[in-house]
Amino acid sequence: MSVYTTVTPDELTAWLKRYSIGALVELKGIPSGIENTNYFLTTRQGRYVLTLFEKLTVAELPFYLDLMAHLAHHGVPCAQPIADHDNRTLGQLNGKPAAIVTRLPGSARTVVTANDCAQIGAVLAELHLAGQSYGARMDNPRGLGWWQAVMPEILPFLDADDAALLQSEIRFQTQADGDELPRGVIHADLFRDNVLFDNGRVGGVIDFYFACTDRLLYDLAITVNDWCTDADGTLDAPRTRALVAAYAGVRPLTDAERAAWPAMLCAGALRFWVSRLYDFHLPRPGELTHAHDPGRFRRILQAHVNAREDARRDLLP
Amino acid sequence: MSVYTTVTPDELTAWLKRYSIGALVELKGIPSGIENTNYFLTTRQGRYVLTLFEKLTVAELPFYLDLMAHLAHHGVPCAQPIADHDNRTLGQLNGKPAAIVTRLPGSARTVVTANDCAQIGAVLAELHLAGQSYGARMDNPRGLGWWQAVMPEILPFLDADDAALLQSEIRFQTQADGDELPRGVIHADLFRDNVLFDNGRVGGVIDFYFACTDRLLYDLAITVNDWCTDADGTLDAPRTRALVAAYAGVRPLTDAERAAWPAMLCAGALRFWVSRLYDFHLPRPGELTHAHDPGRFRRILQAHVNAREDARRDLLP
Repeated sequence: MSVYTTVTPDELTAWLKRYSIGALVELKGIPSGIENTNYFLTTRQGRYVLTLFEKLTVAELPFYLDLMAHLAHHGVPCAQPIADHDNRTLGQLNGKPAAIVTRLPGSARTVVTANDCAQIGAVLAELHLAGQSYGARMDNPRGLGWWQAVMPEILPFLDADDAALLQSEIRFQTQADGDELPRGVIHADLFRDNVLFDNGRVGGVIDFYFACTDRLLYDLAITVNDWCTDADGTLDAPRTRALVAAYAGVRPLTDAERAAWPAMLCAGALRFWVSRLYDFHLPRPGELTHAHDPGRFRRILQAHVNAREDARRDLLP
Repeated sequence: MSVYTTVTPDELTAWLKRYSIGALVELKGIPSGIENTNYFLTTRQGRYVLTLFEKLTVAELPFYLDLMAHLAHHGVPCAQPIADHDNRTLGQLNGKPAAIVTRLPGSARTVVTANDCAQIGAVLAELHLAGQSYGARMDNPRGLGWWQAVMPEILPFLDADDAALLQSEIRFQTQADGDELPRGVIHADLFRDNVLFDNGRVGGVIDFYFACTDRLLYDLAITVNDWCTDADGTLDAPRTRALVAAYAGVRPLTDAERAAWPAMLCAGALRFWVSRLYDFHLPRPGELTHAHDPGRFRRILQAHVNAREDARRDLLP
């Protein structure tokens, strides 16, 4: 269940007087949310999503909402936060921070083609370029420092092989030098379930609540790891080439990025293996997040480690 | 013909590198533009309108483009200017100020129902409320001062009846005191051809290039004059009631506005009678504007003058 905080039509009608989106027509809870309360909201003027934030705070939220507004203003297909009569996109409803964003057309695809991958590669590059003019900064809360911090908590739950892989890969990434790589705002979670396709086109990118400031290539690796891997964790060459080529067609990769690519694929996999291990073995009391299977990113990481030495030659266009 | 400045696909492809809207798919001149060069622009990411401004200058344009961005940010259905990588919505292309805005769905309606009128009344009120938080100001360049200024130029072309009506109505408006009426950003040209309906809903309001700061009721009068009058210039009561009631349902009218309504209907008609007389009798060399028939607003004005004394009782909800 994903409606943690109930909103009645009467409560919303009163709240909507702060906005210029027209009178309420329909309000319908969205069952698929995980961390927030989400409603589909239809008014006389359009279709929106109403979100009540259950974990993120009023101090944290402006980075994400302003980013979405910035990207939408630049034509990147993403939900656009709606401002109220005080010019604020963040309000409070039934005791929770709340926002209204435009509802994007389309639906997510589980099975993706090379053409789908090319489209999302191009959109990711456009997002990175548009993000360069976004003023705010946020350190990656799930970066190397966090992996190092939680590793001691995770290790007791792992068998010898997993423990060895985790330790050696965190050591490898600690020694990797990514300082020379282009940085900027990244989505950091551009999985297939966060992209809506509409009539064969990317209708929208959603869920910006892991966005942060980091190396752009890291975002590309996270995206490729979800969109282009097979069940055994290995990269599908046609999909990978299509995604990376389309990305590089919009934002050409630097020599340093090409050199860093095999290691970055490992970093992108390690990030989700670590967080899934952490959520799986160390669920926090009252935690709303559903624990995902860590095994998938274990397999992807292992495949990247195996291929690390030749990945660059095979996979870059 | 409305493509005054030609843009080739190659020129546009080069220019689009400044934006994050994806690669060019199609570029097609729009024949219906009057004052600007307009193209329908389709990219891999979406559908846009490219405008090259033939008359408005880089000093004048930010008021309009920022207003459109402000209103779109507040959920008012209007075209949204797209920012480039320098965060600017106004650029230069082939020597002209140029902008890309989102292409809105739908098409204009010539024949409108009371339900259509109710919808646009509500949207106009939402636009006025959202406009209250817009920071920029612009005096109405086609207000009372302009009528007074051009009257001596127009009078020689008029017959005795028209001249008497023009003089007496400008005198009447000069004496009318509108200082106590709520003010703000107004569209000032919300005719039927500037509203797109999409699936029975207002898909978008276009053409903000007459927007300015003035009395909100004046905007309502301009809108009613176009949407709710019959061929003889008189108001159609069902459409008028529907539009005004829907407007007042979103932004209730003040007592001062109710009292000023009959005079404001005259002001809204006078504004377009004057400008059409001016354009018709005094076409400027190289002027791109097509002269509209002044007779329509002569009839509307006369009907309002006839009805001035009882209009308030009959037409307000």
